[in-house]
Amino acid sequence: MSDVSAVLSANRAFYRAFASRDPDAMTALWAAEGPVACIHPGWDALRDRTAILKSWRNILSNPHSPAVLCQNETAHLLGDVAYVLCHEVVDDAYLVATNLFVRENGQWKMAHHQSGPLANPPEQAEKPPQRLQ
Amino acid sequence: MSDVSAVLSANRAFYRAFASRDPDAMTALWAAEGPVACIHPGWDALRDRTAILKSWRNILSNPHSPAVLCQNETAHLLGDVAYVLCHEVVDDAYLVATNLFVRENGQWKMAHHQSGPLANPPEQAEKPPQRLQ
Repeated sequence: MSDVSAVLSANRAFYRAFASRDPDAMTALWAAEGPVACIHPGWDALRDRTAILKSWRNILSNPHSPAVLCQNETAHLLGDVAYVLCHEVVDDAYLVATNLFVRENGQWKMAHHQSGPLANPPEQAEKPPQRLQ
Repeated sequence: MSDVSAVLSANRAFYRAFASRDPDAMTALWAAEGPVACIHPGWDALRDRTAILKSWRNILSNPHSPAVLCQNETAHLLGDVAYVLCHEVVDDAYLVATNLFVRENGQWKMAHHQSGPLANPPEQAEKPPQRLQ
């Protein structure tokens, strides 16, 4: 598998863990060795692995958390680091995300995530997903 | 100079170019060799160097562009890649930014920037800057 394919696969695993509300899968995909950070939409940055995983457990266990769909992802390689840019569709809102990955023991692991709102739907917007439940 | 100091220095150069409305300095600090991307607040991602530099020229030449102050920056090293997280104060609004840097010919160059709004002022918020002319 090419690096681009592997990075996009890691990105899909992130949104799969998110959509299926799987805290164990979410925990496993974050980098364990280097620095990690996470900026949820509207939140301040979390710079600590424990705080990041706790935030995800809270989000994934909240029955009111909306469904999230990832669209139009592109991977950008910088050696053993890569970032994916993609759109997130959350209910009727569109966001744009940066997902940063590092190669850790041969596997691409998430090192940082930032998602923020788009003022307008992106040109490539697809139909929003159905809400979970 | 340590890598952390050098990355923070590159981050300061970015906000200095922004605040002083210096398009040449802004152009010089972006990576020239690898992939680059930029997500202005509310905008979709720009994935092309020419489009990114054009967007900055437009922002820097717009007399109505607000002053921007960078606060509370932290550097996170991943070998020859690093990211800085920081707050941006724009008029009365607070944003949080990810600034990604790559080491290019021994110098830290910006590879990606995403800035998005904070729902609330950060705990470490300082006084907003005066608006530029």
